[in-house]
Amino acid sequence: MPQDAINDLLVAEARAGKQVVRLKGGDPFIFGRGGEEAEACRAAGVPVEVVPGITSALGASAAAQIPLTHRANASMVSFVAGQCKGLTEQDWSGLAGKGRTLVIYMGLASAPQIAEKLIADGLSPAMPVAVIENATRKAMRVLRAPIAGLAELVVRERVKSPALIVVGEVAGEAEPDLRALALELAQ
Amino acid sequence: MPQDAINDLLVAEARAGKQVVRLKGGDPFIFGRGGEEAEACRAAGVPVEVVPGITSALGASAAAQIPLTHRANASMVSFVAGQCKGLTEQDWSGLAGKGRTLVIYMGLASAPQIAEKLIADGLSPAMPVAVIENATRKAMRVLRAPIAGLAELVVRERVKSPALIVVGEVAGEAEPDLRALALELAQ
Repeated sequence: MPQDAINDLLVAEARAGKQVVRLKGGDPFIFGRGGEEAEACRAAGVPVEVVPGITSALGASAAAQIPLTHRANASMVSFVAGQCKGLTEQDWSGLAGKGRTLVIYMGLASAPQIAEKLIADGLSPAMPVAVIENATRKAMRVLRAPIAGLAELVVRERVKSPALIVVGEVAGEAEPDLRALALELAQ
Repeated sequence: MPQDAINDLLVAEARAGKQVVRLKGGDPFIFGRGGEEAEACRAAGVPVEVVPGITSALGASAAAQIPLTHRANASMVSFVAGQCKGLTEQDWSGLAGKGRTLVIYMGLASAPQIAEKLIADGLSPAMPVAVIENATRKAMRVLRAPIAGLAELVVRERVKSPALIVVGEVAGEAEPDLRALALELAQ
């Protein structure tokens, strides 16, 4: 359903006297188009309440135990969307690098272009990357490589969506044995 | 309690055979030092599970109905901490600007320096800023100005902590009448 049709539906149902809940995965204001839907409702005189949620970057990094900020090596964190469409026009310079964490949503299909783009922007080819596949699910995997090896990692490990890419020193920390932890915690 | 003492306490209580819950406001991995605490536990052989939370940027922006990303004017969002300590050494260049949203945690006390720093980095003095004070509380206020007027706004309106600063085009959207909405929704 195109976004305009969703907006129209929200307004129409509200005008019909219903309480409408628009339920989304993640957070409605982080790559969720919640802003557009709220605008459409307000423009139509429909009052809106926005309830925040756990966006993928927070949920996946908690599950993988990769802190997005860290006093030792990340004083800032940025979120971008890495779909192929429009990727080359996006200016990401400065978002990744020493002391900063970059989280890429929906970046799996364009992983080779993303790595190229970041390295061309001056990022060290040795900067650690973690790919969190199937976060919080039983089949979760946390795969690590230097950014220069990201494209090869994705192919070699046959990484599938959903997957989140974390670029920065925090991604290079020693990996906790999440499977062993889960077992121990379940006891 | 200094961070090291907190880490030691977590480990000591776990070793005494207890299930320890370390409860934090917001998200433990966004300016929450959760990474350090998890590391300390893992280093001591204590298994850790990390539960994500709603970080202030998400909670406050939902309450103020300011989307952090928007297809029309924000394809990326960054979070930084604006305490006075270490502010001048932090390189924020490129985090604020056209098409990008910058959220500043704990930036109230250093608001004048923050505005100066961003403008010196090339940000337009006309770039909209929103200050969200007391987000989600009854006394919540959403105050807006161009970044060049941020320092004056904070003084004039006597803004107090807790307050979150949002810099970017998304902060300049027409303000919904949140009080009227809250009243209508409460009926």
